[in-house]
Amino acid sequence: MNAKIILDTDPGIDDAMAILFAEANPNVELVALTTVFGNTEIDISTRNALYLKQRFGFKCDVAKGASKPLKRPPVGASIAVHGENGFGNVDMKEPTISADPRAAHQYIIDTVKASPNEITLVAVGPLTNLALALIEAPEIRGLVKEVVIMGGAFGTHEHTGNVTPFAEANVHDDPHAADVVFTADWPVTVIGLDVTHETFFSTDYIDTLRDTCGEVGEFMWDISRFYLDFYKSRMGVNGCFVHDPSAIAYVINPSLFTLREGPIRVVCDGPAEGLTLQKYKQTQHKTDEWADKKPQQVAVAVNDQGVLDLYLDSMTQYGNR
Amino acid sequence: MNAKIILDTDPGIDDAMAILFAEANPNVELVALTTVFGNTEIDISTRNALYLKQRFGFKCDVAKGASKPLKRPPVGASIAVHGENGFGNVDMKEPTISADPRAAHQYIIDTVKASPNEITLVAVGPLTNLALALIEAPEIRGLVKEVVIMGGAFGTHEHTGNVTPFAEANVHDDPHAADVVFTADWPVTVIGLDVTHETFFSTDYIDTLRDTCGEVGEFMWDISRFYLDFYKSRMGVNGCFVHDPSAIAYVINPSLFTLREGPIRVVCDGPAEGLTLQKYKQTQHKTDEWADKKPQQVAVAVNDQGVLDLYLDSMTQYGNR
Repeated sequence: MNAKIILDTDPGIDDAMAILFAEANPNVELVALTTVFGNTEIDISTRNALYLKQRFGFKCDVAKGASKPLKRPPVGASIAVHGENGFGNVDMKEPTISADPRAAHQYIIDTVKASPNEITLVAVGPLTNLALALIEAPEIRGLVKEVVIMGGAFGTHEHTGNVTPFAEANVHDDPHAADVVFTADWPVTVIGLDVTHETFFSTDYIDTLRDTCGEVGEFMWDISRFYLDFYKSRMGVNGCFVHDPSAIAYVINPSLFTLREGPIRVVCDGPAEGLTLQKYKQTQHKTDEWADKKPQQVAVAVNDQGVLDLYLDSMTQYGNR
Repeated sequence: MNAKIILDTDPGIDDAMAILFAEANPNVELVALTTVFGNTEIDISTRNALYLKQRFGFKCDVAKGASKPLKRPPVGASIAVHGENGFGNVDMKEPTISADPRAAHQYIIDTVKASPNEITLVAVGPLTNLALALIEAPEIRGLVKEVVIMGGAFGTHEHTGNVTPFAEANVHDDPHAADVVFTADWPVTVIGLDVTHETFFSTDYIDTLRDTCGEVGEFMWDISRFYLDFYKSRMGVNGCFVHDPSAIAYVINPSLFTLREGPIRVVCDGPAEGLTLQKYKQTQHKTDEWADKKPQQVAVAVNDQGVLDLYLDSMTQYGNR
């Protein structure tokens, strides 16, 4: 049983790891990469998606998406994390292929409508493209199979924010878009810091990827040097948390994650801008801006070893195909 | 060693329980009751403070304070919780004494300046008066001994909000004032739902107060009938959480509480309006609106039996003096 996914992404180093995971695993059919600003400016994230497609021979489409958030001023690219070129400043040839002529949100609308109830939208960057698609064509809510999002931080296991004390980067980059996506009447599963900070690619693990996964392993090892330096210098750890690949792991094997149900809202202003809050208790309140929203799923626990095993296994098979 | 306190309050049934506790305990010197809108409209909360002073012969001053929040539209009185008259609709004679001519925030400023480093401000209602005092006379920050606040909900033990899924009533009533008070450079200790929802006055406990504490016990029993009906019908419990008296318990015996240190901010807009967030981890962020704020103390655990024993002991001695 294949999951047909459109992967909305801002590559980005862990985005590349997620994209290659989706391409590698035989249970995923990667229909398209839709790009968005976030880790990098939109031209760079689109270039990087095209680069991956060309270098590794993906059959998927690439469509270029939003260059800025719906309402808030842009935060700016995460150069300190992903490097000037989004791939840890490794040398890269410019790709010679082009993106689909449609904007990413239009591509999403067209593709979802053409394959009703078949497409899983997986978003691992700011949620601007998905929000634009919902605003332009709200009828897609009933036509998408599932929406899987890497984003947010719900405070379980004391995991709060990364870019601010209480906000995760993808949601903080466009909180208004995230609130549109989380509160829409479609089935959302959120893979946030609550679980991605529980799964860790050690430097040894990434060395193993390099040694066992052929060219794709060497590529991931190369681009992750810069990323690992950031983790080492900022957090004093030898390795990196597994953000974007965790969303793909969920698509492949949902049983690796424990979910909690309840409506989700996003704080869009003030010091807690980008904070995600899920109302998971059945309490009654005079004022309750969660009350009329669709209950969604938030991942609150993960079989981290299971994710690591699945990733290594998928990449090893792909690298030696 | 006596704590000289100004008790800022919106009586209110649990306010009355806290006021009587402060008057009863020999380690507290109740300098004044300053009133604020909140559980009731300001005229009613002031009338109720004067009523308690006259009926039980308090020596303290009463000063009337703010009738509305700093910025947000008023939420309105909590009639469903405290009744039309703020005291559970029991019959009450109108008091024949008057309040101090000064506004509450001016009374606070004058009294703090007159007794530098001696006054503990205890606030168990919306924080408007304290914020107005800080705005009018920021120099009081260095002249107050301590600021103890019943308010907020920080999510420990899964205690989130009461008036909304994520906001506690006092902070929700005036979030802008709360942010002013929590971020000011003075020593704040917050007694929020994280601990007040861990301490419970059962109906049996309140019956014991009635039976052992003389007139004051009978009064508390009378006014709490309405309040207990609210708890029973809304939450299905036989008793009530111990909100405002917990702040007085902290003043009398801080060792009953476990504190956590870190700066506090308040969400002032949107669905999470009134949410309080303490940054208690030493993480570094590009954007951090907690970073330059004074670390404050938040109570995260309580010896609930100790609070119950202290309250009963204080009230029994007072009722039989």
